[in-house]
Amino acid sequence: MDEPRRIALLGGGQLGRMFIENALRYDVEVHVLDPDPACPCAWLAHRFTQGRFDDHDTVLRFAADVDVVGIEIEHVNVEALEALEHQGKLVIPSSTTLRILQDKGLQKDFYVRHGIPTAAYALIESAPDIERHQELLPAFLKTRTGGYDGKGVVPVTSSANVPAGFDGPFLLEKRADIAKELGVIAVLGADGSSRVYEPAEMVFDPELNLVDVLLAPARCEPEVIERAKELALRVAKAFGSPGIYAVEMFLTPENELLVNETAPRAHNSGHYTIEACASSQFDQLLRMYMGWPVGDVGMQGEAAMVNLVGEGGSGMPHLVGTEEILEMPGTFIHLYGKAQTRTGRKMGHVTIISGSRNKLERAVAICKAYAKVVPMPSPGAHITK
Amino acid sequence: MDEPRRIALLGGGQLGRMFIENALRYDVEVHVLDPDPACPCAWLAHRFTQGRFDDHDTVLRFAADVDVVGIEIEHVNVEALEALEHQGKLVIPSSTTLRILQDKGLQKDFYVRHGIPTAAYALIESAPDIERHQELLPAFLKTRTGGYDGKGVVPVTSSANVPAGFDGPFLLEKRADIAKELGVIAVLGADGSSRVYEPAEMVFDPELNLVDVLLAPARCEPEVIERAKELALRVAKAFGSPGIYAVEMFLTPENELLVNETAPRAHNSGHYTIEACASSQFDQLLRMYMGWPVGDVGMQGEAAMVNLVGEGGSGMPHLVGTEEILEMPGTFIHLYGKAQTRTGRKMGHVTIISGSRNKLERAVAICKAYAKVVPMPSPGAHITK
Repeated sequence: MDEPRRIALLGGGQLGRMFIENALRYDVEVHVLDPDPACPCAWLAHRFTQGRFDDHDTVLRFAADVDVVGIEIEHVNVEALEALEHQGKLVIPSSTTLRILQDKGLQKDFYVRHGIPTAAYALIESAPDIERHQELLPAFLKTRTGGYDGKGVVPVTSSANVPAGFDGPFLLEKRADIAKELGVIAVLGADGSSRVYEPAEMVFDPELNLVDVLLAPARCEPEVIERAKELALRVAKAFGSPGIYAVEMFLTPENELLVNETAPRAHNSGHYTIEACASSQFDQLLRMYMGWPVGDVGMQGEAAMVNLVGEGGSGMPHLVGTEEILEMPGTFIHLYGKAQTRTGRKMGHVTIISGSRNKLERAVAICKAYAKVVPMPSPGAHITK
Repeated sequence: MDEPRRIALLGGGQLGRMFIENALRYDVEVHVLDPDPACPCAWLAHRFTQGRFDDHDTVLRFAADVDVVGIEIEHVNVEALEALEHQGKLVIPSSTTLRILQDKGLQKDFYVRHGIPTAAYALIESAPDIERHQELLPAFLKTRTGGYDGKGVVPVTSSANVPAGFDGPFLLEKRADIAKELGVIAVLGADGSSRVYEPAEMVFDPELNLVDVLLAPARCEPEVIERAKELALRVAKAFGSPGIYAVEMFLTPENELLVNETAPRAHNSGHYTIEACASSQFDQLLRMYMGWPVGDVGMQGEAAMVNLVGEGGSGMPHLVGTEEILEMPGTFIHLYGKAQTRTGRKMGHVTIISGSRNKLERAVAICKAYAKVVPMPSPGAHITK
């Protein structure tokens, strides 16, 4: 065989599922490791292994007979990835890149070392150390490792804000003035070629701290768009190992761009590429894993993405508003196949494509008004559509 | 639950696989029945049942606990579908529609009864009857039932052309003068609403009698395109039951349109809709099964589809030319996941999307030059890319 075929994916969540959805048409084998036997990839993987992706030996055993190892979550055992690289396997992202990005402190130091603009910060061991950095306040206090989706972050103006049990070491980061938050995905091919998608503009839900609505391209001056794309490429090239790099950045009121953080994997801010681009973020990963050429990132028209976040408690998920969404042209529902919904849990998203920003914004409003994922009503209960 | 969820699909080939690929993002359950445990849908279905879809009791048992029954091949047991309709299940296409389309004779009579233009024909019992229909010669002699993909058809100028063992009853059909062959997919929703995709132009491989390259929209006068769309809609509405209708038609040198045959299911001539349209032929089916609104058939730019047909004998399939295909922007590889390739077997297709017909035709030429599915070279053999 002249090309690698079996791909091992660490993590079996929605990112893995959307990866497999695209990979299916190429008929490649995807093996998935996840602790949850009901995870979105479980029945869709060619081979599913229940186990911890943060456990060294489990990862080594899982990836023993594959050609390529990828991740769909950062919290994997990086020593195991390093060992797999030494065995000659293709690991994307590289263990070196991942080691830096797993630690918010190392990540910030990396940006500074490479002249990549980022908010001022200090690395501290414990809450009382905040008082020695008055110049950074008000700030965000972040645990250096293990944080995810808004977990592991508290806003602080003094050490009194730190809840009990919120333990360091920490990254203390000056709160930037934010005009907009952008997500820009850069692609670095194994042959050194690179591409960058149109920047997406993220709108946060202040209550759930989740991306709620996203617009692509971002509503910014062309000059800002160009700078954002260059900055994302600079970040990717600074890491230097093949992969896709989702670079979250802040645009300040002074039109300055600051890198917030980077994920070396597919990302929520790139879901719009599934329908809006010839080669999606998931397709780029597959091409890399397989040694195929980097794909086309060109985009026609405008795209919006609305996250579907669980509401109304726990239970089997049910999407309300399907008809209202599907009546509009150019709408695409993605449900992640999670067995249980919970308030605040990412359950799916809707992508909307249009030639006009006005139509797009109207469709987003309809989607926000009607679409929600709630626990399935019990059989026989009265159902209001 | 306020909407049907479990879909039973009779047949587990590539049409079923592409249906599931799209259905995955909606998180619906698809159950598949096929005699081949290695068929393209086998490991992808929520539940796969090995069994014959042309066996009455097998179909009834298989569909006992689902809400909707669909087909991806016509040769299914129509009495079983009728019984399932009587049980109150949604069956698409209806048993009445399928009963007519399973028999090329009933199908032709149906066209004539509904004033739908079609080539002159006679229904005959055996080969010697050909001599009584000199006015139809030269003709095609087709077995009324069971034919598929060019099987069950012989060109005849007299009864002497009929091979031994080629048994009737037959449809004897006058050979039309053909300027072009078009495939037009009409969509008939459960609420009576209808849509029709852009007509595709099919180019046949004379040796394999398989669609080889397809262009959409077809290269015809706008007036012809409009007539072709109207004709496809007329066919769908004549049948009247919800479903998608792939209407193959001939354009004669006199610009007349003649309906050749209709498939009440997804069709090769509609594969281009996966990438070129917001709602593909597979998405329309899912929407119908689920009771959701009919989707948008609008198309931007031009599309081409190149069938990937097995060459060079039997074995595990291997696609040559992947890099050459993927280097071009807007190309999409689809491999159907068949365990074995054989000379002449449909193994996949490549869709190409472009804003310009010139670029499209160049990309088709490159694809035809490089892409082929061959048996996998044995390990260690010298491989030429």
